[in-house]
Amino acid sequence: MPKLSERAARMPASPIRKLVPFADAARARGVHVHQLNIGQPDVETPRAMIEAYRSFDAKVLAYGPSAGLPELRQAIARYYGRLGIAVQAEQVHVTNGGSEALQFAIASVCDPGDELLAFEPFYANYNGFAQILGVGVRPIPSRAEDHFHLPPDEVIEAQVGPRTRGIVFSSPSNPTGVVYRQDEIERLGALARKHDLVLIADEVYREFTYDGAHSFSALQLSGCDDRVIVIDSVSKRFSACGARVGCTVTRNADFNSAILRMCFARLCPATVDQQAAIAGYELPASYFDPVVAEYTARRDALIAGLRAIPGVGAYLPEGAFYAIVHLPVDDADAFCLWMLQEFQHQGETVMMAPGSGFYATPGAGRTEVRIAYVLEVPALERALAALRAGLAAYPGRRG
Amino acid sequence: MPKLSERAARMPASPIRKLVPFADAARARGVHVHQLNIGQPDVETPRAMIEAYRSFDAKVLAYGPSAGLPELRQAIARYYGRLGIAVQAEQVHVTNGGSEALQFAIASVCDPGDELLAFEPFYANYNGFAQILGVGVRPIPSRAEDHFHLPPDEVIEAQVGPRTRGIVFSSPSNPTGVVYRQDEIERLGALARKHDLVLIADEVYREFTYDGAHSFSALQLSGCDDRVIVIDSVSKRFSACGARVGCTVTRNADFNSAILRMCFARLCPATVDQQAAIAGYELPASYFDPVVAEYTARRDALIAGLRAIPGVGAYLPEGAFYAIVHLPVDDADAFCLWMLQEFQHQGETVMMAPGSGFYATPGAGRTEVRIAYVLEVPALERALAALRAGLAAYPGRRG
Repeated sequence: MPKLSERAARMPASPIRKLVPFADAARARGVHVHQLNIGQPDVETPRAMIEAYRSFDAKVLAYGPSAGLPELRQAIARYYGRLGIAVQAEQVHVTNGGSEALQFAIASVCDPGDELLAFEPFYANYNGFAQILGVGVRPIPSRAEDHFHLPPDEVIEAQVGPRTRGIVFSSPSNPTGVVYRQDEIERLGALARKHDLVLIADEVYREFTYDGAHSFSALQLSGCDDRVIVIDSVSKRFSACGARVGCTVTRNADFNSAILRMCFARLCPATVDQQAAIAGYELPASYFDPVVAEYTARRDALIAGLRAIPGVGAYLPEGAFYAIVHLPVDDADAFCLWMLQEFQHQGETVMMAPGSGFYATPGAGRTEVRIAYVLEVPALERALAALRAGLAAYPGRRG
Repeated sequence: MPKLSERAARMPASPIRKLVPFADAARARGVHVHQLNIGQPDVETPRAMIEAYRSFDAKVLAYGPSAGLPELRQAIARYYGRLGIAVQAEQVHVTNGGSEALQFAIASVCDPGDELLAFEPFYANYNGFAQILGVGVRPIPSRAEDHFHLPPDEVIEAQVGPRTRGIVFSSPSNPTGVVYRQDEIERLGALARKHDLVLIADEVYREFTYDGAHSFSALQLSGCDDRVIVIDSVSKRFSACGARVGCTVTRNADFNSAILRMCFARLCPATVDQQAAIAGYELPASYFDPVVAEYTARRDALIAGLRAIPGVGAYLPEGAFYAIVHLPVDDADAFCLWMLQEFQHQGETVMMAPGSGFYATPGAGRTEVRIAYVLEVPALERALAALRAGLAAYPGRRG
């Protein structure tokens, strides 16, 4: 029997999705599962996007251009322009979600055996894409007591090795909710210049910032045009995760040329979904106001509820819609599984993403979960009641 | 300025798409360009698929399951069942087009530095995906005088090296149109068992066979369940290239587990496009009868027309909708460019894919083009007239 490749054998299971069969089984037993494991918002997709599907009409559903529909590339460039960020349509390459954008960026920067730095805990799939591409991810710890802001330069520079080619990070962050300040992004820019690194900046949560926090884009750095690739997506921005439309944005002509050749190889992104994305990018900036107000309320309800549970540690995230939460348990992987397999509270339970999958350091994150506050406040409150009851009943409770 | 990775720098430009800017320029000058470069059929997409987009309605365009919508996986399994091929829905993983299926298959089988064998000329993007993944493609020549059927076993086995992990091939073939007979697929199965290789069988043109040729699937091999991964797609089958819905099919549980983890990393295929694909897979087998009759007529018109041009060499392809055609020119890359930049015949010209991009052997394919017979017969005949006139006028004509 032929062997799996090493890279496939080592491909990590997604901490966000690996428990899905157990949640399905719980539902089959009649238990309501509050899904706080995945960044799937319940916010309505803008009707203009839905209508783009409904008004699609063509005799032939044909290939589009490999780099994306020109109208979409232009709409994305205009969107950046409204943010005060000068981007040409030719600097935008449309991808199958932010996921493909990440793969193209990593492949453009790294050969097999090269390394990227990532601030831990980080988006689990950075590991997965790096693994497929034969690239290492070297973790740099960030700390809950700092609300996961950047560690000092010395801590970062200590991890730069001969094969280090770049830094991949998200801000606003999945999974921590940190929003790096302008001075932090500028520190990353200075480090990139000093050590000849590329910044792969995942900015898909750009609009989701609270309490006056502000997203500073890596595209706004001075002197870094050649060393920034931004990853973007409509998934969270317009609550359109199922459209699978993302993009890369970079001003480095060599990267754009390589990304275009990678785009050629996989032919094109889906045509109708891109038409829907155009409708999203044409929405006024005011579209985000009620959405951000809603997430602020959810975050406040979640964090207040978590802090009221004995032994739970939760800081106030500044953006995105995730928090890394400390639980008083022996092992969060076991606890998350137990919540689905063994537990219910008034016919309900909670699905969360175990923290370990967001770390590369062995053993790290074992008492943590990532909670996505993607449900309305009443549902969050019921989920909190189930979590509190679950923690009280869990045999592996600690502290 | 940061350097591109080696793999990105070496990423080949698509022979199918690299001339697009020159075709655009020709059109801007008012020249009609017959597009025979790309496998974009003008056959109408089934209305039921278009209607699936038009009837989409949901408040939230949400993520689907990573492996694909269960209804689509089941529909694909039933489609295989109708062909007499037993496939479970769990053995089907839905991908972003056949392109992503190829990437998952290659990554499952090969580590960086490993090799795949491919019969030359082969689908150009096998090279591209292998390149991104750090995998080598070792070409095995096949010959126009054999209509590109398999070379003898000894020729194939001579290329098996210590890092060879599999054979990637398409049948019906893009770009040659060869349809391997059952005995040829069985020879590949025997070679795979003998040398512990995996067959990555690209069968996206399965229904497009002419003159009684019949597609024998690698899934029909005995004793090879563990070493076959089939690549499939709705793009050509239902003339729905813009849907970007493909799949892997394998009975090897380890590969399915690895492919699922790769699916997790990129979250999911696009939701609405999968609903359209379901509508396609529910069409009766009779859907293909008029389509195949139409392609047969186009093939016959194309090949008869080519054979009437002095110096042109064309065999009769057995399937798909491509032919590798010998032209009496110094360099087909230069000729294809000249046809777009310098030439017109009664206001028209022809866009073709230069053959060199379908070969890994340096210098091979220099006097060949790939022609896709994806236009109606009257348009093909106008394209042939322009090609004949172009060959007569081309300064680099040879022979």
